[in-house]
Amino acid sequence: MMKKIYANGTDEKAFLEQLAKRTGETDKRVSQIVTEIIETVRAGGDQAVQKYTKQFDGELPQYYEVPQEVIEDALNEADEDFVNALLDAMENIADFHNRQRENSFVNALPNGVLLGQRIRGLKRVGLYVPGGTAAYPSSVLMNAIPAKIAGVEEIIMVTPPRKDGTPNPDILVAAAICGVDRVFLSGGAQAIAALAYGTEQIPRVDKIVGPGNIYVATAKKLLYGVVDIDMVAGPSEILVLADDTADPAFVAADLMSQAEHDKLASSILVTTSEKLADAVLVELEKQVQSLSRKEIIEASLRDQGAILICDCVDCAVELANAIAPEHLEVHLQNPMEYLGRLDNAGSVFLGQYASEPLGDYFAGPNHVLPTSGTARFFSPLSVSSFLKRSGYVYYTKEALADAKDDIVLIAEREGLTAHANAIKVRFAKD
Amino acid sequence: MMKKIYANGTDEKAFLEQLAKRTGETDKRVSQIVTEIIETVRAGGDQAVQKYTKQFDGELPQYYEVPQEVIEDALNEADEDFVNALLDAMENIADFHNRQRENSFVNALPNGVLLGQRIRGLKRVGLYVPGGTAAYPSSVLMNAIPAKIAGVEEIIMVTPPRKDGTPNPDILVAAAICGVDRVFLSGGAQAIAALAYGTEQIPRVDKIVGPGNIYVATAKKLLYGVVDIDMVAGPSEILVLADDTADPAFVAADLMSQAEHDKLASSILVTTSEKLADAVLVELEKQVQSLSRKEIIEASLRDQGAILICDCVDCAVELANAIAPEHLEVHLQNPMEYLGRLDNAGSVFLGQYASEPLGDYFAGPNHVLPTSGTARFFSPLSVSSFLKRSGYVYYTKEALADAKDDIVLIAEREGLTAHANAIKVRFAKD
Repeated sequence: MMKKIYANGTDEKAFLEQLAKRTGETDKRVSQIVTEIIETVRAGGDQAVQKYTKQFDGELPQYYEVPQEVIEDALNEADEDFVNALLDAMENIADFHNRQRENSFVNALPNGVLLGQRIRGLKRVGLYVPGGTAAYPSSVLMNAIPAKIAGVEEIIMVTPPRKDGTPNPDILVAAAICGVDRVFLSGGAQAIAALAYGTEQIPRVDKIVGPGNIYVATAKKLLYGVVDIDMVAGPSEILVLADDTADPAFVAADLMSQAEHDKLASSILVTTSEKLADAVLVELEKQVQSLSRKEIIEASLRDQGAILICDCVDCAVELANAIAPEHLEVHLQNPMEYLGRLDNAGSVFLGQYASEPLGDYFAGPNHVLPTSGTARFFSPLSVSSFLKRSGYVYYTKEALADAKDDIVLIAEREGLTAHANAIKVRFAKD
Repeated sequence: MMKKIYANGTDEKAFLEQLAKRTGETDKRVSQIVTEIIETVRAGGDQAVQKYTKQFDGELPQYYEVPQEVIEDALNEADEDFVNALLDAMENIADFHNRQRENSFVNALPNGVLLGQRIRGLKRVGLYVPGGTAAYPSSVLMNAIPAKIAGVEEIIMVTPPRKDGTPNPDILVAAAICGVDRVFLSGGAQAIAALAYGTEQIPRVDKIVGPGNIYVATAKKLLYGVVDIDMVAGPSEILVLADDTADPAFVAADLMSQAEHDKLASSILVTTSEKLADAVLVELEKQVQSLSRKEIIEASLRDQGAILICDCVDCAVELANAIAPEHLEVHLQNPMEYLGRLDNAGSVFLGQYASEPLGDYFAGPNHVLPTSGTARFFSPLSVSSFLKRSGYVYYTKEALADAKDDIVLIAEREGLTAHANAIKVRFAKD
């Protein structure tokens, strides 16, 4: 089901090159379609959004904006165990993200100078929630909770209606418990364009977060700069680092938990033990039979997955760093010893009981993570993602007099005489 | 020289619409040219870079990579006052940015669970420094110092050669005192592509920072996702908020200090005092005569500048927030009282001695700031810009047993049975 590849061979090179090609580049045909949608929504507002909703999602939705009482009813009518599970998860997620708060500072000098940095939440954030089988309440929690902690004043959710025009009730439940302020039934690139520019009814936001298909991702990328976005996200990935102490049943189950997301999802085992590799292959065959997304899992493991067999743990670690996966599981003896060497990963799962789905739903760290090798430079979604900073300066005349010569010298050296003049003019009458 | 516009009239609306159109959108023709350059450099490496350098910058540069001894010589031969001025500035900039350091954390629970966030510097960063008259040593300081403080291991500078093929010595001096590791004489979109993908000689970087012309900015935008970038930067902007306590000579000088950057730079005075407005106009005429960039200043003030006259200070503050300028100067009585209401600005200069060039060169806060209204959601360059985070989780079997039911419930509700299986399989043998 997964191909075995020996490290340092030609197959490994081909596999790594295939992986590297996943790096966030945009399909030109999709770009054209999305550009047209963006321009139409920018000019036509809500009417254009509704036109596209009808075109792509079938009938017009039951509501454009979901009334508050419908959201409250969804929460009141929801299965109690489900609501409690979400509340348990929310507590852990909030606890972790509360530790990411940042404070403003000011350096007040004895000569009267103030040098500061103000930090505050963005005013208004848009949260995209996909429809269909990818409508995940956990994603609402992971996006909305850090925004709330950052002090974002208003969260606007957009999500496509279901086939029958109604909202997905589980999504509304998650929205209600997280304190999402408004929900619009609108999806695709048209919803992203509406959030970026604002329409008559959908307010313009400062940042758009949340996963989506290629049209949504492309719209976010094209509108980056008009609005801030969370990241350029690709298909999900897991890399499991394992030695012969690993349990093959656990490893196989975790590889499949990512593979079930998408045929393009990538599940990679990097191991020093060929014995483990073979045992994992047996476990995959066995466990996949009972899984509802068997077909997706098999396609994903066959086309995007691989078992890379390395000569030593150091080589395995180096390979993991080169691949820079979204999720990295460490099934090595004494897993904590490797934390400081794992340079590139969105989220790290240490030891055999830190299964990736634990992080998806429950443990606390965010599950919105950099993909396609971008863990080399991008970070998970966090409270910081919803904060904005400004520097500020207060100066006295005396302090400026002390700094004057340095500033004028550098400005004139740069050929910027109006910069120099702005300092000199303040002492012209002395 | 600057048009006077009364708030709430039709002229104001037209002016604000003109301003809003500045928002970071990409020119299609430039995009095409830059896309071709990127693809050529990606395929052709250093040879392609050198081909474009010859095409756009004239002759081939004296060196492709500037030897370390040439950089050291530039520092040794530099004017002592200039070096000392840069060192004074560096001390202030480093002091301010040291306060932006962030720490990793771990929440170690009594049940053996560890929930953590690792923070560390990016490995390798590319710093673009423009050539020609826009070759600013201060820009090297503002980009390199926070990277160093963040713990970036290697800073690669790229900068176009001068017309005669030699490097700009002032840039080398700034590079030397900031600890830039390597300098390549290469500019334009080709240098950005080389940093993003790596060539035989120019190493691939994790993030590219630094200002540049439209080709450089477009290359950065197109490569965002392949590599991280600092921001999508447009022409410089200043907005001065002033009442009748302001000194018109100071206000005029500061407006011109931004106007001299570029004919597209935007200098705006928002004031409650028509008397001040008229006095500023007189001062502009007077002071501009002695400035070397008179022509640029006059074009910028005429085409992009305006004096907006408001009925009240609250309206003036609201207008400043709507415009979201890169630099915001507050020449109001009791300027500190307004800090908490100035929502959208990259950097705020409070009081009549906090002249904008003080911030450009010397005070400490970063001068790499969001432009074109993006201060609504983007932040100044900071130490955080060069950090990357990873979440991590260590769990025990007992802790997972406690969490099991919640995780399985949410996973199954989301239709992700392989996620549920990954948890269940860990207790299958019990």
